[in-house]
Amino acid sequence: MTREQFTRQLAETIRMYNAKGWSPATSTNYSFKDMDQAIWVSRSGVDKSQFSASDFITVNNLGNAVGEFKDVRPSAETLIHCVIYQLFPETGVILHSHSVNPVLISALRKDSIEFEGYEIQKGFKGQTTHDATVSIPIFDNTQDMIAFASTLRTNATLLENHAFIMRKHGTYAWGKDLFEAKRHLETLDYLCEAELKLAQIVTPKAK
Amino acid sequence: MTREQFTRQLAETIRMYNAKGWSPATSTNYSFKDMDQAIWVSRSGVDKSQFSASDFITVNNLGNAVGEFKDVRPSAETLIHCVIYQLFPETGVILHSHSVNPVLISALRKDSIEFEGYEIQKGFKGQTTHDATVSIPIFDNTQDMIAFASTLRTNATLLENHAFIMRKHGTYAWGKDLFEAKRHLETLDYLCEAELKLAQIVTPKAK
Amino acid sequence: MTREQFTRQLAETIRMYNAKGWSPATSTNYSFKDMDQAIWVSRSGVDKSQFSASDFITVNNLGNAVGEFKDVRPSAETLIHCVIYQLFPETGVILHSHSVNPVLISALRKDSIEFEGYEIQKGFKGQTTHDATVSIPIFDNTQDMIAFASTLRTNATLLENHAFIMRKHGTYAWGKDLFEAKRHLETLDYLCEAELKLAQIVTPKAK
Amino acid sequence: MTREQFTRQLAETIRMYNAKGWSPATSTNYSFKDMDQAIWVSRSGVDKSQFSASDFITVNNLGNAVGEFKDVRPSAETLIHCVIYQLFPETGVILHSHSVNPVLISALRKDSIEFEGYEIQKGFKGQTTHDATVSIPIFDNTQDMIAFASTLRTNATLLENHAFIMRKHGTYAWGKDLFEAKRHLETLDYLCEAELKLAQIVTPKAK
Repeated sequence: MTREQFTRQLAETIRMYNAKGWSPATSTNYSFKDMDQAIWVSRSGVDKSQFSASDFITVNNLGNAVGEFKDVRPSAETLIHCVIYQLFPETGVILHSHSVNPVLISALRKDSIEFEGYEIQKGFKGQTTHDATVSIPIFDNTQDMIAFASTLRTNATLLENHAFIMRKHGTYAWGKDLFEAKRHLETLDYLCEAELKLAQIVTPKAK
Repeated sequence: MTREQFTRQLAETIRMYNAKGWSPATSTNYSFKDMDQAIWVSRSGVDKSQFSASDFITVNNLGNAVGEFKDVRPSAETLIHCVIYQLFPETGVILHSHSVNPVLISALRKDSIEFEGYEIQKGFKGQTTHDATVSIPIFDNTQDMIAFASTLRTNATLLENHAFIMRKHGTYAWGKDLFEAKRHLETLDYLCEAELKLAQIVTPKAK
Repeated sequence: MTREQFTRQLAETIRMYNAKGWSPATSTNYSFKDMDQAIWVSRSGVDKSQFSASDFITVNNLGNAVGEFKDVRPSAETLIHCVIYQLFPETGVILHSHSVNPVLISALRKDSIEFEGYEIQKGFKGQTTHDATVSIPIFDNTQDMIAFASTLRTNATLLENHAFIMRKHGTYAWGKDLFEAKRHLETLDYLCEAELKLAQIVTPKAK
Repeated sequence: MTREQFTRQLAETIRMYNAKGWSPATSTNYSFKDMDQAIWVSRSGVDKSQFSASDFITVNNLGNAVGEFKDVRPSAETLIHCVIYQLFPETGVILHSHSVNPVLISALRKDSIEFEGYEIQKGFKGQTTHDATVSIPIFDNTQDMIAFASTLRTNATLLENHAFIMRKHGTYAWGKDLFEAKRHLETLDYLCEAELKLAQIVTPKAK
């Protein structure tokens, strides 16, 4: 697949997630690594309902725009993407969501959320059964991206399920390709939606 | 209707259910019997938002891919489909959903869920009035498909409403054709959504 | 507007309501009066996601198919439509919905549901302010359409807001044209959704 | 961008919001200022699912239709738009929503709703961090638009976040262009949805 074909697929996914309400207005950011290992990230300030394949720019490992894009603003959270590529070198795509479900779960929990018994847990690479407990870390939000990058490095061992939640902000999920990254992002959202609805139950045995 | 026309219709239904959130990423599986009574099942690992008419393969009664598809992986849950075709020979289509509604109902109930008084209950073939109680069985989930096939055979008498729930996994529903199978799957989901929302009610008479 | 143009518009509305989840599988039925005052009703057993302009048949005042459609089955609830046209002769279109919101409201109330203070109440023809109480009757469901027709005639004075709810079944709403009928159906659904969500509130002043 | 291109964009946004359920039937109204500073407002009584670029008319500062549109009815709430353009001269687009989320929040609060800690708060122009409290005023609804215009003028200092809620009616949000106005409207709706769902939580720590 050429980079043009890939960016069209990723742009389509971004618009689809916007239609689900996962990226109100300009929120969220996305990235991928091309065949030359260059990192491409979504440019800042684009309405995600209109996101197109040409809205990506190249950045270096410090999250700064380079080359022809030198004067274009990458997403403010670009550094998060760079750290994930460094911690997990097999990563090819990183997705970000502001879906309400994980945002509310993070308002109800402290450092992590645990799921157990759901078949969908197998959506996380490495999980092979529903009969297990999956833990996803919840980090406090911050406007200091350098501090947050440090938090991720310090807590790398908690990222074994290829996703994390930023409190009252959103989720990041990644994979070796778009297919895998989507599976991780959507699995986490589904589980958060399930736990949120369970927490709204008043009369479990009511009929 | 030719098999090509039918698989296009079924693929469209599969993509439509994915858009509803009923099959995150690669989850769920679907099957049908063709005019020669051969069983076709969805191949494993396909993103259901991209499912196409060519993503079906033929399997034998043991759930193994045969013929030209000998080396392709059928869905892991293929054996479930084979058992349903054996227990209910008039079955033509089997659908599977990971919709959150039945998954959460199964977290709140033990062996079954009962519905009564809903007009939509008539959506289950054999039900002719709202003034009745419909029972849908809930089976524990398992990664052992041979064990689960056995569970289905043992509990065949509970499957009179052409659907069942696997705990914290999803639903299976079937019918003589796509139209009937859809009606069973959607009726069950609607009823689970209704009961779930009722269980979230705090102040029934509030105004 | 010709009848062909009108039926295409109404069929589009029917498919749109199906996409909203208001008519799972074959449920619901719709009708209109043409320029010759003939009543056309949706034929029975059509998947509403596939409903087309040619899926209407003519019936007489008793709800029986006539003319070229003599051998086609009209919707089982056709008699309800005939009674509404008789009680309210200016009616041009009648819509029916199985949306979960009013269905659940009817499980929580007895003979009626009252709304007050919502701007959207002005969506009911005759209502000119939010500062009023609007009452919508809830009738018990029944499989006996002749009995239900009688219930409607007996309670005609309660139908001043051009809509009613059948318990754990759905809503009927009507108007002089499609635009007005839609406004009545959607206004009622919106109000039921609002009251249902309010009834799920645990901590009103929580922050 | 020509006015024709702009009205096509705004009409597309209006239809998109209608598909989200934010403008049942004919509810809501929208406006923009063209390059000559003339105010264009949506005409009254149009089904927003069918709204087109030609459904705007020019009004003067008193909210009355002028010029070629002299005999067309502007939206009843046109005066609200005129006041906002006067209070905030850099405003280019004003949007209105009847989404259930803010409507229910206004049923649960008195004069305002506060949000704090959400990353999405940065969607309001002027907000630069999640670590702040954002206050959005809630005004009582009224059918007297002249009285409401006066209320807005009196409370102009509360409108610093470019949006307000009318109790059990809906929201108004504005910005220098469509992009900014959408961001304000969607940010407010997202925050109201979040707070509403939190208020439905029964067992926060349940697992």
